[in-house]
Amino acid sequence: MPRFGGPTTMFRLPSVQLPSQDVKVCFVGIPLDIGTSNRPGTRYGPRSIRAESCLIRPYNMATRAAPFDSFQVADAGDVPINTFNLQKSVDIVTNYYDERIFKHGIIPLTLGGDHTLVLPILRAVRKHYGPIGLIHVDAHSDINDTMFGEKLAHGTPFRRAVEEGLLDCERVVQIGLRGTGYAADDFDWARKQGFRVVQAEECWHRSLTTPLMTEVRDQMKDGPVYLSFDIDSLDPSYAQGTGTPEIGGLTTIQALEIIRGLKGLKVIGCDLVEVSPMYDTSGNTALLAANLLFEMLCILPGVKYRTNNVKMPC
Amino acid sequence: MPRFGGPTTMFRLPSVQLPSQDVKVCFVGIPLDIGTSNRPGTRYGPRSIRAESCLIRPYNMATRAAPFDSFQVADAGDVPINTFNLQKSVDIVTNYYDERIFKHGIIPLTLGGDHTLVLPILRAVRKHYGPIGLIHVDAHSDINDTMFGEKLAHGTPFRRAVEEGLLDCERVVQIGLRGTGYAADDFDWARKQGFRVVQAEECWHRSLTTPLMTEVRDQMKDGPVYLSFDIDSLDPSYAQGTGTPEIGGLTTIQALEIIRGLKGLKVIGCDLVEVSPMYDTSGNTALLAANLLFEMLCILPGVKYRTNNVKMPC
Amino acid sequence: MPRFGGPTTMFRLPSVQLPSQDVKVCFVGIPLDIGTSNRPGTRYGPRSIRAESCLIRPYNMATRAAPFDSFQVADAGDVPINTFNLQKSVDIVTNYYDERIFKHGIIPLTLGGDHTLVLPILRAVRKHYGPIGLIHVDAHSDINDTMFGEKLAHGTPFRRAVEEGLLDCERVVQIGLRGTGYAADDFDWARKQGFRVVQAEECWHRSLTTPLMTEVRDQMKDGPVYLSFDIDSLDPSYAQGTGTPEIGGLTTIQALEIIRGLKGLKVIGCDLVEVSPMYDTSGNTALLAANLLFEMLCILPGVKYRTNNVKMPC
Amino acid sequence: MPRFGGPTTMFRLPSVQLPSQDVKVCFVGIPLDIGTSNRPGTRYGPRSIRAESCLIRPYNMATRAAPFDSFQVADAGDVPINTFNLQKSVDIVTNYYDERIFKHGIIPLTLGGDHTLVLPILRAVRKHYGPIGLIHVDAHSDINDTMFGEKLAHGTPFRRAVEEGLLDCERVVQIGLRGTGYAADDFDWARKQGFRVVQAEECWHRSLTTPLMTEVRDQMKDGPVYLSFDIDSLDPSYAQGTGTPEIGGLTTIQALEIIRGLKGLKVIGCDLVEVSPMYDTSGNTALLAANLLFEMLCILPGVKYRTNNVKMPC
Amino acid sequence: MPRFGGPTTMFRLPSVQLPSQDVKVCFVGIPLDIGTSNRPGTRYGPRSIRAESCLIRPYNMATRAAPFDSFQVADAGDVPINTFNLQKSVDIVTNYYDERIFKHGIIPLTLGGDHTLVLPILRAVRKHYGPIGLIHVDAHSDINDTMFGEKLAHGTPFRRAVEEGLLDCERVVQIGLRGTGYAADDFDWARKQGFRVVQAEECWHRSLTTPLMTEVRDQMKDGPVYLSFDIDSLDPSYAQGTGTPEIGGLTTIQALEIIRGLKGLKVIGCDLVEVSPMYDTSGNTALLAANLLFEMLCILPGVKYRTNNVKMPC
Amino acid sequence: MPRFGGPTTMFRLPSVQLPSQDVKVCFVGIPLDIGTSNRPGTRYGPRSIRAESCLIRPYNMATRAAPFDSFQVADAGDVPINTFNLQKSVDIVTNYYDERIFKHGIIPLTLGGDHTLVLPILRAVRKHYGPIGLIHVDAHSDINDTMFGEKLAHGTPFRRAVEEGLLDCERVVQIGLRGTGYAADDFDWARKQGFRVVQAEECWHRSLTTPLMTEVRDQMKDGPVYLSFDIDSLDPSYAQGTGTPEIGGLTTIQALEIIRGLKGLKVIGCDLVEVSPMYDTSGNTALLAANLLFEMLCILPGVKYRTNNVKMPC
Repeated sequence: MPRFGGPTTMFRLPSVQLPSQDVKVCFVGIPLDIGTSNRPGTRYGPRSIRAESCLIRPYNMATRAAPFDSFQVADAGDVPINTFNLQKSVDIVTNYYDERIFKHGIIPLTLGGDHTLVLPILRAVRKHYGPIGLIHVDAHSDINDTMFGEKLAHGTPFRRAVEEGLLDCERVVQIGLRGTGYAADDFDWARKQGFRVVQAEECWHRSLTTPLMTEVRDQMKDGPVYLSFDIDSLDPSYAQGTGTPEIGGLTTIQALEIIRGLKGLKVIGCDLVEVSPMYDTSGNTALLAANLLFEMLCILPGVKYRTNNVKMPC
Repeated sequence: MPRFGGPTTMFRLPSVQLPSQDVKVCFVGIPLDIGTSNRPGTRYGPRSIRAESCLIRPYNMATRAAPFDSFQVADAGDVPINTFNLQKSVDIVTNYYDERIFKHGIIPLTLGGDHTLVLPILRAVRKHYGPIGLIHVDAHSDINDTMFGEKLAHGTPFRRAVEEGLLDCERVVQIGLRGTGYAADDFDWARKQGFRVVQAEECWHRSLTTPLMTEVRDQMKDGPVYLSFDIDSLDPSYAQGTGTPEIGGLTTIQALEIIRGLKGLKVIGCDLVEVSPMYDTSGNTALLAANLLFEMLCILPGVKYRTNNVKMPC
Repeated sequence: MPRFGGPTTMFRLPSVQLPSQDVKVCFVGIPLDIGTSNRPGTRYGPRSIRAESCLIRPYNMATRAAPFDSFQVADAGDVPINTFNLQKSVDIVTNYYDERIFKHGIIPLTLGGDHTLVLPILRAVRKHYGPIGLIHVDAHSDINDTMFGEKLAHGTPFRRAVEEGLLDCERVVQIGLRGTGYAADDFDWARKQGFRVVQAEECWHRSLTTPLMTEVRDQMKDGPVYLSFDIDSLDPSYAQGTGTPEIGGLTTIQALEIIRGLKGLKVIGCDLVEVSPMYDTSGNTALLAANLLFEMLCILPGVKYRTNNVKMPC
Repeated sequence: MPRFGGPTTMFRLPSVQLPSQDVKVCFVGIPLDIGTSNRPGTRYGPRSIRAESCLIRPYNMATRAAPFDSFQVADAGDVPINTFNLQKSVDIVTNYYDERIFKHGIIPLTLGGDHTLVLPILRAVRKHYGPIGLIHVDAHSDINDTMFGEKLAHGTPFRRAVEEGLLDCERVVQIGLRGTGYAADDFDWARKQGFRVVQAEECWHRSLTTPLMTEVRDQMKDGPVYLSFDIDSLDPSYAQGTGTPEIGGLTTIQALEIIRGLKGLKVIGCDLVEVSPMYDTSGNTALLAANLLFEMLCILPGVKYRTNNVKMPC
Repeated sequence: MPRFGGPTTMFRLPSVQLPSQDVKVCFVGIPLDIGTSNRPGTRYGPRSIRAESCLIRPYNMATRAAPFDSFQVADAGDVPINTFNLQKSVDIVTNYYDERIFKHGIIPLTLGGDHTLVLPILRAVRKHYGPIGLIHVDAHSDINDTMFGEKLAHGTPFRRAVEEGLLDCERVVQIGLRGTGYAADDFDWARKQGFRVVQAEECWHRSLTTPLMTEVRDQMKDGPVYLSFDIDSLDPSYAQGTGTPEIGGLTTIQALEIIRGLKGLKVIGCDLVEVSPMYDTSGNTALLAANLLFEMLCILPGVKYRTNNVKMPC
Repeated sequence: MPRFGGPTTMFRLPSVQLPSQDVKVCFVGIPLDIGTSNRPGTRYGPRSIRAESCLIRPYNMATRAAPFDSFQVADAGDVPINTFNLQKSVDIVTNYYDERIFKHGIIPLTLGGDHTLVLPILRAVRKHYGPIGLIHVDAHSDINDTMFGEKLAHGTPFRRAVEEGLLDCERVVQIGLRGTGYAADDFDWARKQGFRVVQAEECWHRSLTTPLMTEVRDQMKDGPVYLSFDIDSLDPSYAQGTGTPEIGGLTTIQALEIIRGLKGLKVIGCDLVEVSPMYDTSGNTALLAANLLFEMLCILPGVKYRTNNVKMPC
């Protein structure tokens, strides 16, 4: 079958109905965008990422990871959120991840959807893992108390997460923050909670492989870790199709360095959020998201690598 | 000032803060799209319609209407809705139209926004005019009881309006309905309420000037009338930029015939909804909307016409 | 599940692996575009039509057809063509339709793909039904002997079909032909074979319901009939996303009249070809195609209609 | 050579350097857009029309005209206008058409460029033919005295033409005028000069073949005639890619009826103006323009028709 | 009010009519594009930059600048240029900046518009400040003597400025020049005038914070300085929406380094030119421009910074 | 003539019919895309690159190369490939390059077209130069044995080239390889043949001028060298318009460093492949390709440089 034909599941994987005993890792879509404060459209994120994911082949040429030889992966489809009510959607997601995913030891790789969705996922995480270590890659700290008076929105999930004790704050790092804010001390709140905050300016003109990711691995220790990756952490030149682009962002090279730098950690879930296909005229932002999700798959515990005698460049 | 320069208010009119004693007619934007069941983006409808409206000149060459010579018109800006909560947004709109518009005898021409917004407007209308006659031009009847379990959504406002006694059902006409439905009798519910339902198929291959609009004027009698115009009533070839396009729709010629056919009625408000700029790559759907809003302005009570001796073509 | 979520099969139907005993009608994609002489991209036609088909609801509001209440329908996925070799692809399609579809009495509704694909389908049809009646809706007659010296291309299938005895030539009608040609008598060859040729100019400014479709039903008699619908039969204003657009074409209203006019015939298969998503910036050509495929489903033998007492407009 | 390859002259014709003794008809581009009052971009009109013209084949299937069998046609390239100075550009065009085209009895088919260009062409026409009959197809009458104080602009050429005696005013018809104006009597000025003005509303829902074009042929008599065709005469649904779109316009069917209706007149030049490729995302407006220019070629004096015994539909 | 609603002034600031005693800094649009030699469209630059500027929040998270807490800023709307005559437009701009802006000690931040506009601004500057220091960030040196024989065009303003004594040539730096030229010594002319020329190649693979901007601050000394920023100085990957893109350009990170590096200089005006929205399909070039204009605002004399004890990354 | 007018040959050069005695270097288009495994559209690559090339001026401002002062350059138009049959197209190209180009000592700069086209060019090269040195810049190694069972496809040319002895394997370098593969050892096959493989990861965060290009020049020695440049070697942020984009790619700065680094080698031909204009909404990928082709022209043997006393930045 040509790659432009066939099913449009993620990586053309088999569909699975959760819960399932057979699957260790699954892709899950959350077609949510009513938590969005600016340009909408992330409701079409999961569909678009899946469609473009057909271009991805099964082996990682740089790291030689062979994820599909390592464990059973499947596409669980979308969570049936309520598109007219954000509160109800959040509760649906919490319940879905609790009952159908974490209870069965499955590692979810979530396709967003706006960033509000990380709050219900973290609520479900806490039930099974307790407060979690967090690698949060984003242009925005998403720690507003409210947006236009609302507690639930895509700019508030990590404030809620701290309030609810979902995070092991000493094991939280935020990478890529930048741009303009509502108050000049927006990033300081996070630092006061114990988060490590790595502003984008600290990332300019350099590799993040070292020392940053070495330090992050040290910070995360042996505990369980969750990766929340907002596509707008990347510079708009790489990720045009998102709702709140900020200039001066990370490169895709740095994104690869971050994700590859997580190898060896006890990652129990990942998300890739804020792809807005309407602003992605070429489909390349969705394709980028599919690539990053593949790289996440390649660093999960248990992945096999094809060793050989050729000197590897990285 | 070149027309591509200067302020981007509607038709480059002066801005006004409502309530105002000076203005008889005002444009109001409602940047709402969280009532949308499919493609989003109508939150940018008011901005886009205003931007394209700069191409409209002050006189109607076909009907010779001179609205700006007739009464004071202004742009009141946008209603500050809550983009994270549909219920609150609906209440904000009701209050705004009640307190700032209808209480002062102002005729609003509303720029949507998704069609949910007509419900709070009709609630405000009722306080000042009682049950109203309605010309509803649309591809969809919007009389679902619920959508995914919710009472408030862009597919339900006229069901709510009937339930709440907002409409004078014998003076309601729905024009342009078509497409596919959730139940084969979706249109029958409207007919049972006393609505006249004119399916798109009845409009094919013909002028709507007569007999349709003659009959509609008879149906409306002398009472107050509200016009709710969904841009998706038009065929997608004319109105690409909308969220739920349906093939086999009205032509812009028929749209002009409908609006021009309302001349002489006691129109107390109009809306133009469901323009979604992300799907409007050329800006021409927004420009079409601006033209239709201009035509609405040209049939309001009190508009002056420039008479002359030249035989008019229509 | 919101309609923008969930699986991207046609109309979100269940997937089926052919052959299957359970299904009477199936959608099949053929992601072919190497038979294209101009703008390519129809390889993405099936994917795009399926994606947009989520906007279609289950009941036909105009005709009251209820196809999903009538028989089992499913999506069989794509035929695994060889994208580097047109001859091999043609043979793969013939075999697939022979062995997996027509042998089991299944009615295929094919999502193209370029028009070359109708030749292998007709070859498979002949094995099971003999020479077939054909309704061919298109801007082009597709009866060239060769294109740039090749016998196989998207402009030649009906020449080949005549040569191979696949058609019952007295029961062939071509509707919508127009534009420019390589020789001034291109349409005459078809007429000499006994085809009825209805040039687009004969369709201008009128309904096709009568007399055209009445006459077509008479012409088709009681024998088996195949419908091949090229999206470029429609005017480019309706179907922007195709590779060889021709001005002065049919309207979508006329397309609906043609398909609805086939009710009562013994239709044994249909195709919708030449959707090229790269030229379909809004997705509306794919959505149009999905609508037309739904209308085809609604006129198949055995479809139930929801009767009632309300006077129908058409 | 596949049609998507090879030179990008108009219809892939040979290039010619004017003046030339060999050519009877030539295509000429005028890449002008600094006379544009709204959306710019017509400077790329000639390039884009030529590029899309490769889709046109040599025979007219409807009228059976065979223009390339009839006389020598070539592409003369572009006029080297001064893109920083409108007055100088106008003078360059006048001189070019006088010295290189009309002096040699060549019929120009001009690819615009904004409508300002018709003024210098008409100035050159007058030197060789005297006051001319004019078929002017447009959404706008283009008879403003000034635009923002300037005498030269794309909204003023026919006012200047009347003042300078370039037109035989009794043999002028304007077809398709509509929309909004700066003064309610904008069209009356034209009528007072003796022009026949056919507003778009007079064209709605009907064929223009009769009686309109019969009457136009009568009006034009035996004198020389110039055709100036503004692509914005067409409805924006057909011609998205233009700078001043107006709703409620002509159909491409009507455009074909108008041009085909000119057969038999002494046409000495034609233009197709106001294609703005930046707003033409699919290239289909440029393709439409190429088709209309082909149809103009097909009605020039001396064109041969391929007669036969098959009954023609139109 | 959601940020996608409300007025579309720059940063949703209040409108002001110039001259005004209350305002220290103002945004001014110049919707000019008839000085453009290639792709047009900058006439829509000011509108588009304003529209996208709604995404900018009031505090600079990297530098902690709080410009709106520092002085009165407003949006003065557009200069009413003459779109049909470049010479007249230039004179209108000179007069506007002289009489309404610099005479009143206001610092203008200009939204272009093509680069021709810097010449009349510098003419007005000279009346009030004498020859000025200039930071010119651009892909092109814009020091052609003529373009196609014309002295006024977007490729000539700095040649004119030198000739007219508008610049303090020892205090001029041009950063980012690259690409192809009409003569191999194009950059040498600038060097001969005393300009420092920093070709793009000198900027590759490095931070511009040091030593470049340190040296620039030394070069500028204490005198008044004007910043002219052409968006095409940036690589097309960052700034797709411009008329003369050149590969191998600056990064947005370097743009931020340049602007932030001007802190402490006596900046008396800035412009951001050559945004062409038609080529900016996502709006991200306009958003980039809005960000850069915000950064310019943040380095003006008198801006306050929110100090704190947190170590700043840059 | 404004640069947006005039002929659309490459750099507006004169057309030439090959073979020709007068020309030393020629541009040749190969409008091929049926070797494409994913997104098609490269058939329009040559047309689009030529159209955008009008923005390139004649002198290289960085290297001071003056290619048009150095030797005769022309545009030979397109190779008349067979768009329905890949095998025949390959043979047509071999014959064309053998008989019309290399036999006459002409250096071809080829505009693709998909990468399959390099195989027939290398076959023709071998007849005249023997096994060749190769600089292959690409995201993909293109050394698959088959694709979907076919020996000819855009992912296989260099495997064929090795098998057929077309390459001097010790003088082959592949730069920019990355992404996902069908087997974890895909790159090792190339290394085993003696190729130097430089994965993208080795290029991150650094200049390629040294040591890489110094080493490449040493590797190539004095023998004849061919440059095959796939636009997808570049990161998608620079080259959106291609069919198989891979994240983490080269920058345009690195592309310039690679090509400029070839100065002094005996380059006997170059190609630039895989530009797919449908995915290039701004035209900037085609413009990038035109720039790279200009840079290739600037390093050919015999190019003159304008020396002077100004210190060059690179």
